[in-house]
Amino acid sequence: MSQSESESQIAVVLPDGSELSVPEGASVEDVAYEIGPGLGRDTVAGKIDGDLVAKEAEVHDGAAIEIVTDGSDEYVEVMRHTAAHVLAQAVKRLYPDAELAIGPPTDEGFYYDFDDIDVDADDLADLEDEMADIVEADLELEREEVSYEDAKERLADEPYKLELLDELHEEGAQITFYSQGDFEDLCAGPHVESTGEIGAFDLLEIAGAYWRGDEDNEMQTRIYGTAFESEDDLEQFLDRKEEAERRDHRKIGNQMDLFSIQDVTGPGLPLYHPNGKTVLRELERFIEDLNLDAGYEYVETPHLFKTDLWKRSGHYENYEDDMFLFEVDDDEFGLKPMNCPGHAAIFQDQSWSYRDLPVRYAEDGKVYRKEQSGELSGLSRVWAFTIDDGHLFVRPDQIEAEVEQILDAIDTVLDTFELDYEVALATRPEKSVGSDEIWEKAESILERVIEEHEDDYVIEDGDGAFYGPKIDFAFEDALGRKWDGPTVQLDFNMPERFDLSYVGEDNEHHRPVMIHRGVYGSYERFFMVLIEHFEGKFPFWLAPEQVRILAISDDNLDYAYEIAEEFDEFRVEVNDRDATIERKIRGAHNDRVPYMIIVGGNEEEAGNISVRDRNENQEYDVEIDAFRDHLRRERDEKHVEPDFLLD
Amino acid sequence: MSQSESESQIAVVLPDGSELSVPEGASVEDVAYEIGPGLGRDTVAGKIDGDLVAKEAEVHDGAAIEIVTDGSDEYVEVMRHTAAHVLAQAVKRLYPDAELAIGPPTDEGFYYDFDDIDVDADDLADLEDEMADIVEADLELEREEVSYEDAKERLADEPYKLELLDELHEEGAQITFYSQGDFEDLCAGPHVESTGEIGAFDLLEIAGAYWRGDEDNEMQTRIYGTAFESEDDLEQFLDRKEEAERRDHRKIGNQMDLFSIQDVTGPGLPLYHPNGKTVLRELERFIEDLNLDAGYEYVETPHLFKTDLWKRSGHYENYEDDMFLFEVDDDEFGLKPMNCPGHAAIFQDQSWSYRDLPVRYAEDGKVYRKEQSGELSGLSRVWAFTIDDGHLFVRPDQIEAEVEQILDAIDTVLDTFELDYEVALATRPEKSVGSDEIWEKAESILERVIEEHEDDYVIEDGDGAFYGPKIDFAFEDALGRKWDGPTVQLDFNMPERFDLSYVGEDNEHHRPVMIHRGVYGSYERFFMVLIEHFEGKFPFWLAPEQVRILAISDDNLDYAYEIAEEFDEFRVEVNDRDATIERKIRGAHNDRVPYMIIVGGNEEEAGNISVRDRNENQEYDVEIDAFRDHLRRERDEKHVEPDFLLD
Repeated sequence: MSQSESESQIAVVLPDGSELSVPEGASVEDVAYEIGPGLGRDTVAGKIDGDLVAKEAEVHDGAAIEIVTDGSDEYVEVMRHTAAHVLAQAVKRLYPDAELAIGPPTDEGFYYDFDDIDVDADDLADLEDEMADIVEADLELEREEVSYEDAKERLADEPYKLELLDELHEEGAQITFYSQGDFEDLCAGPHVESTGEIGAFDLLEIAGAYWRGDEDNEMQTRIYGTAFESEDDLEQFLDRKEEAERRDHRKIGNQMDLFSIQDVTGPGLPLYHPNGKTVLRELERFIEDLNLDAGYEYVETPHLFKTDLWKRSGHYENYEDDMFLFEVDDDEFGLKPMNCPGHAAIFQDQSWSYRDLPVRYAEDGKVYRKEQSGELSGLSRVWAFTIDDGHLFVRPDQIEAEVEQILDAIDTVLDTFELDYEVALATRPEKSVGSDEIWEKAESILERVIEEHEDDYVIEDGDGAFYGPKIDFAFEDALGRKWDGPTVQLDFNMPERFDLSYVGEDNEHHRPVMIHRGVYGSYERFFMVLIEHFEGKFPFWLAPEQVRILAISDDNLDYAYEIAEEFDEFRVEVNDRDATIERKIRGAHNDRVPYMIIVGGNEEEAGNISVRDRNENQEYDVEIDAFRDHLRRERDEKHVEPDFLLD
Repeated sequence: MSQSESESQIAVVLPDGSELSVPEGASVEDVAYEIGPGLGRDTVAGKIDGDLVAKEAEVHDGAAIEIVTDGSDEYVEVMRHTAAHVLAQAVKRLYPDAELAIGPPTDEGFYYDFDDIDVDADDLADLEDEMADIVEADLELEREEVSYEDAKERLADEPYKLELLDELHEEGAQITFYSQGDFEDLCAGPHVESTGEIGAFDLLEIAGAYWRGDEDNEMQTRIYGTAFESEDDLEQFLDRKEEAERRDHRKIGNQMDLFSIQDVTGPGLPLYHPNGKTVLRELERFIEDLNLDAGYEYVETPHLFKTDLWKRSGHYENYEDDMFLFEVDDDEFGLKPMNCPGHAAIFQDQSWSYRDLPVRYAEDGKVYRKEQSGELSGLSRVWAFTIDDGHLFVRPDQIEAEVEQILDAIDTVLDTFELDYEVALATRPEKSVGSDEIWEKAESILERVIEEHEDDYVIEDGDGAFYGPKIDFAFEDALGRKWDGPTVQLDFNMPERFDLSYVGEDNEHHRPVMIHRGVYGSYERFFMVLIEHFEGKFPFWLAPEQVRILAISDDNLDYAYEIAEEFDEFRVEVNDRDATIERKIRGAHNDRVPYMIIVGGNEEEAGNISVRDRNENQEYDVEIDAFRDHLRRERDEKHVEPDFLLD
């Protein structure tokens, strides 16, 4: 500011927050050399204000600059961009008539879209071979700034590129080409120095994609690939990808007949089949038992409300675009995006004394969010999901005890499923409601409680809601992926908006504090996490079918049904199909049934059973009573894995 | 038809179906005289094609004629119409400036609307006195046919009547006046002969009403009254009315904090408070246990569907006007008016063998019907209600066993609540789908099963759904009112529309039959019936608060809490407020708590309790264990009344 600079100098901001003065017109690479010659030499690309750019890109005054070098995540992104060009080059060699569309890097690799190409999955190996040749040839990537006219001439046979070129020209952007050997492409970069830097790559699949993502445009052919610095990284990626596909909840949901999402019924609106609903009901009952023990009272609110309610709560301003809204007899109505205003309306419907608090309402409440159809996916992104919602109306002096009780419940649930998780305390943001006093008090309470409960947590400064501080949990599944989980949020705003009050010991009206809390969060997302985490191998208490009884031959079928009676407090089926015992066992493994009871002549004679679990442990001569006692324990104690044969 | 008649004769149809030839231009009274001179003399009014008319009204060729005489329901209706005129006459005497609007009879009495009148409930007695004078004077009612111009002159000071007159004139209707002594009114009739025929009457209340029921018009004053042939009938009516008001579920719902319907949240959309949700949950669990025992599997379907589904099911054509519909991204969506198509979509999502059937899906499924706001009332008429819905997909040879099982479940529920009911079998209507063979078979199955199950039932010929025959139950509550209850409906249509099939033993595809069934029907309506039937005194197992513990003095509070621990498997509260024991007992009676446990020094010393029930039975020196054992039995066996003190 007061610093005196020559007029031809500008200042850029480095990642550590320090400023660096460089000549006007300097490139990212110049900035790197300014920092140090070693860094200058290693520079592959850069970031200006967070956007990945070529090292040749000019920086502007006040720009936030990062230097991208070999080994960083950004380097891999740059390399993948180059791999996309290598794919296009290979395509042009094998399919000279193909027209180029766009070819960007992605989080997991890259793709390139082509038109006028006749290619299928069988052709990917040939393309990979051609790409391998190009990588081996170690062709240098050359950047060239060209005029609009020149570019137009060079792209005469590429109608899609011409469309992009005209747009760049209209925007007044610098037009650049990158070339490698016999291939060149209209491209802003950045790229690695040469094709030889691509360590390991793989083409993954072919799909259709609309030009510019618009259904009204022509369908093009998209080829997906990925690239890594090393073969090891690629292997690891492919293993994880295979694992994720194996665990995909949509696939398992179909295999196990848990749920469906159908065209005729609508997108983002899952139908739970009997098996899925059985799992859901067990989850509902688990949380219901915890809630009732903790003094929650269940309520039930409509899914449909007059929007007057959402205007009072403030959700209308913030959620209007995501709400399903419609008129009925001149009034506007909407499907609820949140359960809290309905609960506030119930609380508000009567008068309360300080002795009545805390009041704890619970509801498995369905909420509706109008996501773009394209963003919907299985149970993870839906239009309608159910929250195991809880809203507490408490006196300020009750916050600590209540939050403690909520964290206890969350611990119980996380322990039950043996899920890893992360915890964050989000504190007061710049824009917020409520007095300094209550914020400071509330934050210190949350911190104290979290400290007692959790070995590890982070503080996310200023990330709280405008209405109060919160504690957010993220589940970590078997693949290390993180998912939004339990949450505890203090709210100083809603009680104001609904003018909620209780009469204190002083006979005056006081505002309660509202606490929003969800343990599973969304049942749909939690169900998805469980399916993928357990790969459909649900804990015994959740399994849709808990025990399957297999008769070795038809002669033992009567005995099998007798045994079924003995276990009728569980979800038990007899496989009475005409099949070999080996085939029946395979069927039960496929269906992920925790336990099989196998009965043949020996068992019938001895009046006992053989037991096999889904992990292929097996034991003969098992007493019926002993097994049933174990199953009761395994169910009631909610063991994660079948452990009768591990005792 | 081939009957030869003189041209001036026409034929009318009498209630027994016979035809009677009368001269053209004959009145209802003429028809009566034609039948017999006695009937002619007794005629008060008539019905032409079901519409109540004056005895002077002209009949037309082919008209269905009924004669109304003293003692019939229609006679009471006619008398009430006259009573409305008597009210208007009394008003005109006491409030000469009042303007007359309309004054029709109703199902339960009559009303008359007035403008420019300043009257309140305290004035009703004076009006009744004035009416009594008019009745006593036994003024003759005289009918007069008048010209439009004459009528206009006579109604010069009655702007509302003039509006009605102009409409009648435009329609070309005969304009008639009825007069009695010093009062006359524009009126089509009919009326009784003289005011003295009004046996007993009463004015009930004053309310506001918009002219012609339109909110944009001025608010008028409506005075409600009723009239009967005898004082006894009137007494009985008033008693029943008082009883119905005492049992009104909206009033009790508020007293017991069961539910609310609020302006800000919307009409016809109840919010269940904790007490209400507790009752609902018990009802849900009861039916769930019955369903699971009977082999039902629970499913869960969205509340929101693409209308494609309703077009496939046929509901769109029939229910479009009653559906909540709206567009999302160019597709039309709607809240579900029925659960069956969602269940059919789940069934359709996989393939079935004859061995898999019957498949029985259950869901407590919310459905939406857009009733006019004016028709909504408490829980009895709502926009959103939950059905304890079940849909079975069965082979034709399984219909009988399944219907039997459903009737068993219905019997269990009706017996549990000790509700009276009526049963009807509704058979094939003229317009229907499905072969003669399957209809005949289905009807004979239903009749056989109903015969076995029920002492008494009626056959409603031709009243079945177009898609199949059905059995309908109507609950009868403590006031003898009937409410739609359980239903079992066979459906040959939906399986066609959804192309549902199973593979038979013959390896061919076959259509299953679908059975729709509800036991409670709508939870909302059933809840309403229960509240009013039991006057909020729910059976122990349903009561929101089952046991209240009252300490005789604060010294016994610790003991009260000890006792509460002993009964913590029930919904138990300790009244720890500072009040006399008499007041606490009164409070528990007001809250309709089935049992009170009263503890004082004597109980504490003896280590026992005193027990009082809500019917004011009381016993001292009760052993804790004995009472707890009884409560378990009373809960599990679902006794209707607290019976510990009756044992």
